[in-house]
Amino acid sequence: MKKINSILSLLVLVVIMIGCGGDGDRKKSGAMATNAAERVYVAPGEHDEFYGFFSGGFSGQMSVYGLPSGRLLKVMPVFSQDAEKGYGYNEGTKPMLNTSYGFIPWGDLHHVDISQTNGELDGRWVFTHENNTPRVARIDLNTFETGEILEIPNSAGNHSFAITENTEYLIAGTRFAIPSPQRDMSIEDMKGNFKGPLTFVKIDQETGGMELAFQVIMPGFNFDLAHPGRSASHGWMFATTYNSEEANTLLEVNASQNDKDFIVALNWKKIEEYVKNGGGTMMDAEYAHNVYNHNSSTATSTMKKGVKTVDPKDIPGAVFFMPIPKSPHGCDVDPTGEYIVGSGKLAAELTVFSFSKMIKAIEDKNYDGDAYGIPILKYEDILGGIVKQPGLGPLHTEFDGKGNAYTTFFISSEVVKWSLKDYQVIDRKPTYYSVGHLMIPGGNSRKPFGKYLVAMNKITKDRYLPTGPEMNHSAQLYDISGDKMELLLDFPTIGEPHYAAGIPADLIKQNSKKIYRLDENEHEHAVRNESETRVERKGNEVHVYMTMIRSHFAPDNIEGIKVGDKVYFHVTNLEQDFDVPHGFAMIGANTAELLIMPGATKTMLWEPKRIGVYPLYCTDFCSALHQEMQGYVRVSPAGSNPELKWSLDGD
Amino acid sequence: MKKINSILSLLVLVVIMIGCGGDGDRKKSGAMATNAAERVYVAPGEHDEFYGFFSGGFSGQMSVYGLPSGRLLKVMPVFSQDAEKGYGYNEGTKPMLNTSYGFIPWGDLHHVDISQTNGELDGRWVFTHENNTPRVARIDLNTFETGEILEIPNSAGNHSFAITENTEYLIAGTRFAIPSPQRDMSIEDMKGNFKGPLTFVKIDQETGGMELAFQVIMPGFNFDLAHPGRSASHGWMFATTYNSEEANTLLEVNASQNDKDFIVALNWKKIEEYVKNGGGTMMDAEYAHNVYNHNSSTATSTMKKGVKTVDPKDIPGAVFFMPIPKSPHGCDVDPTGEYIVGSGKLAAELTVFSFSKMIKAIEDKNYDGDAYGIPILKYEDILGGIVKQPGLGPLHTEFDGKGNAYTTFFISSEVVKWSLKDYQVIDRKPTYYSVGHLMIPGGNSRKPFGKYLVAMNKITKDRYLPTGPEMNHSAQLYDISGDKMELLLDFPTIGEPHYAAGIPADLIKQNSKKIYRLDENEHEHAVRNESETRVERKGNEVHVYMTMIRSHFAPDNIEGIKVGDKVYFHVTNLEQDFDVPHGFAMIGANTAELLIMPGATKTMLWEPKRIGVYPLYCTDFCSALHQEMQGYVRVSPAGSNPELKWSLDGD
Repeated sequence: MKKINSILSLLVLVVIMIGCGGDGDRKKSGAMATNAAERVYVAPGEHDEFYGFFSGGFSGQMSVYGLPSGRLLKVMPVFSQDAEKGYGYNEGTKPMLNTSYGFIPWGDLHHVDISQTNGELDGRWVFTHENNTPRVARIDLNTFETGEILEIPNSAGNHSFAITENTEYLIAGTRFAIPSPQRDMSIEDMKGNFKGPLTFVKIDQETGGMELAFQVIMPGFNFDLAHPGRSASHGWMFATTYNSEEANTLLEVNASQNDKDFIVALNWKKIEEYVKNGGGTMMDAEYAHNVYNHNSSTATSTMKKGVKTVDPKDIPGAVFFMPIPKSPHGCDVDPTGEYIVGSGKLAAELTVFSFSKMIKAIEDKNYDGDAYGIPILKYEDILGGIVKQPGLGPLHTEFDGKGNAYTTFFISSEVVKWSLKDYQVIDRKPTYYSVGHLMIPGGNSRKPFGKYLVAMNKITKDRYLPTGPEMNHSAQLYDISGDKMELLLDFPTIGEPHYAAGIPADLIKQNSKKIYRLDENEHEHAVRNESETRVERKGNEVHVYMTMIRSHFAPDNIEGIKVGDKVYFHVTNLEQDFDVPHGFAMIGANTAELLIMPGATKTMLWEPKRIGVYPLYCTDFCSALHQEMQGYVRVSPAGSNPELKWSLDGD
Repeated sequence: MKKINSILSLLVLVVIMIGCGGDGDRKKSGAMATNAAERVYVAPGEHDEFYGFFSGGFSGQMSVYGLPSGRLLKVMPVFSQDAEKGYGYNEGTKPMLNTSYGFIPWGDLHHVDISQTNGELDGRWVFTHENNTPRVARIDLNTFETGEILEIPNSAGNHSFAITENTEYLIAGTRFAIPSPQRDMSIEDMKGNFKGPLTFVKIDQETGGMELAFQVIMPGFNFDLAHPGRSASHGWMFATTYNSEEANTLLEVNASQNDKDFIVALNWKKIEEYVKNGGGTMMDAEYAHNVYNHNSSTATSTMKKGVKTVDPKDIPGAVFFMPIPKSPHGCDVDPTGEYIVGSGKLAAELTVFSFSKMIKAIEDKNYDGDAYGIPILKYEDILGGIVKQPGLGPLHTEFDGKGNAYTTFFISSEVVKWSLKDYQVIDRKPTYYSVGHLMIPGGNSRKPFGKYLVAMNKITKDRYLPTGPEMNHSAQLYDISGDKMELLLDFPTIGEPHYAAGIPADLIKQNSKKIYRLDENEHEHAVRNESETRVERKGNEVHVYMTMIRSHFAPDNIEGIKVGDKVYFHVTNLEQDFDVPHGFAMIGANTAELLIMPGATKTMLWEPKRIGVYPLYCTDFCSALHQEMQGYVRVSPAGSNPELKWSLDGD
């Protein structure tokens, strides 16, 4: 095998050296720490100022943190099963995890983005995507539940992800180039034969509903990060590619050969117009479209076919490559839309492109050749400026809306504040350790709320009490309201937060739903009062129509079930008060509990395996007599003919 | 149906009325709050003073919090699948969730208890149990991973749970009475025919290994909470029963009929001796015993048969009932072992029993009749004292080691501090809202660390920014070092924390393992360097022996796989530095990722469904070139005969 070159060994060494500090010591808190204490403290009964929606990375979920306290308010299941909430286990939510590959219980949730109107956060939805089996998702911010998952066909992992500034489109770029269409071919023949589609998903402005619009079939480079243009550059999107070498093996060496890779600049309005006028070609495809109805607590999964594809060469003036020093990662657009910051993670400098210069270069047709027919703009023509010696390993940049940019540096493990006016470094602060993304609420919109910055660090080491070989990842909160950044707080995170989106609480909390209204319950097996409860047999299927209210089930004694039956419990929570969920569990069920919010109905499948009398009970402490909220089901032998009976207290 | 009586309606009303406060307001923080801020703040780089191990309730997992900061350091999967860590998904951990009912992906984790030596916390293990499909578990506190799960047969949900003060036994009491042995019988015939076994699990003092010792077949009351005797009362255990009425339906009414239910007092040393001398009867049973080997990252599940049962009537002097006012819940023993606090949750007073009086009453054979042959002690004879008008709905009590007890009151939503000397109330503080358990580190041992108290509240309402109809449960941290309790902090929790166990960090952190040593790796498919990596076909099974190290897989190009194959990826993380995990994901796999700590090997099963070339990649950001850590697998048609090939950079 080829030896890894010395630069790479050095990088590894730097990473290893990080985090050799000793144990923490409570006594170290000085005056500054005390001051920080007050600034992150949210007293009992008071509320955080910002919501932070954090990607869970390899957890597949999204976490909601309160800022500045750093408290985990909720984990929202998206791409992975969640036993706690029954997500992906109960009959209503299982369709959410359906794909063309069948049921997939796990996903790798990377970037998150809150919906925008006119480039400003509107707090309606938060969108995200999955890096393994390619999917995108929408979470509805009135219920804090996943409302829709759309599989991206003809693709393999999507990583570069952007929401346009009026939430017109969600854009998902293929991270791993693959044959297009998929076929049985030699991996070595990758170069020129693999493709990297950029997928455009149209978003319904009223409902947030997602529909596959078209795919731009790009060369087989690996698309990494993306951001949409905004303000001046609205209508464009920008995405980095880190493997313009099209290497298929040992990428840590072979994808670091070219001096420059590319940022793709794509005029999606032009392509939208092209498709609208009949452009593009339908290609075979199969993909799942999963939609959740919050009123019925039930999802449907529809397998769709075919996708409109577009060859960028067919639309002159729509797609360009911007050359950028070695292995770019982040690609961030400032609030005015003029500056596009490219972070070559192995480059010594930080490159900032000018959108207006780019437009001029395109108008002048000043190209530096092409790649697979796509014009390459001249680096010098489009360069806005360079931040010199900013740090080692630049990754991502966000903005405070006051003319400043903040860039993370993985290798030198720091956040660096610099000016968009003169590209001068203003401040730098260490991160502990090896920061990836950073987030400023609204920091990738026209209107950032430049009070706090959160660094999402990849390595934790000694930052918290040890928890065995596996440590949670760690975030750090900085105050950026002054000239210099101030580190306020460390807090551990769920999974790996690849990115986060913050928003002032006021833009969401008024719309937060408290209960599901019983009279709006659309679950096909809902019952609305105890008089409707019953048990019905259809062959070997038994349907139990059950209710729960403090502190009993109706019915709570059931007989007539047999071994081999498929028993469907359709359970409705009759409560109509906020924060009175009930749970439902059945011994030996090969699935998770039902956790049912007030007014909702959920369905569990139980397949009893042995004769006997088995309890069921409420899993979520609901009243002083919660412990008494239980019942029994009698299971008779297979082939017997027991009478179906159900009751509550003999009635 | 019978109407719920007016007391119950009142209780429900009280609960509804709670939590009508308005939104929080940052400006309210006054001088006291500022002071509290400093006392809970753990500055960046410093460590919390205590570990808190919190039950996850219906999440099935256990969470580790740092105290006083309230930061979530880790979620440790126990009884539920965890997609983030691959627990219950990868081939090594799937056996952990096996039961006599088959694979069960979810559990309801209730109480937790840290191992003790001579009645003091020793920090070696934390034990817990499952309330639905009855199981108990041990987590090893050097790795923070679940080491063992033992199913409890002849039982249905276990809720009353205790670890004796030298960790001799884990005791698990059946919450839901069932036929014993299980049989197809009418639910209405419950009374006298159902049983409530108390199960004793012997714990190996060296390894923590668990073995089913014997079951005491108690009457079919519902066993609720339990604690072992300690110091003076070591050798006994105490457990409440809340359904001595043996009601089978509408328990909120029908199990609240008797003026008094029982605390069972059981001399387990006497029963142990009886069994040792050949006493007891073997009964048919089938139960899973699942053991995890941390060195191989692999669990085995063994189905065991038969259980030794004991009829309490056969052992005079071993088992007694202590009458206690209505529907007792908590049953807590003070550090000296003399006081047994019983909390009748519908009672107006708090009853404290005296162990020495109990012994005297037993010696005097002063009984008040019997229940199913078990002597009932006279209430007056064993009463130590009464705390008068302490609050409404007493649930649980812990101790500070300074002569004080702290009891939670669910209905009046408060924690009340009272003196063990004179039963006088010293202080009371509200909780927000409806507190269940409370925890003082070491508060159920001979040596409490009486600095902090955590209230675990059942209702959250407006305590945090709203997150739709579902709010996380909430904990509150109080400083109890002074005469009066001081509320310092609210923090949300994972699932429903039924109980928690706190311990000074120093008792654990020195023993925390940093890596798995490669030379101790016992996984049967581990490889220890890249030269051993290979791919082998055995019929339609393909075994990939793969390694990962910053920042590549070996091999990273694989051909010769066919649709319909079962591909086992045995992946070893060659790193030997702390906190350098790698992850492994395969597009379209119907399972979770592998998350692999340094030196460990894990196995994923992938069943490719379609021809093509598919990427694999590292899911956990590991170095500056993490993004380049990827590879490809070629999938050829079923029935074809492709050559098996694998390589890294052509070698």
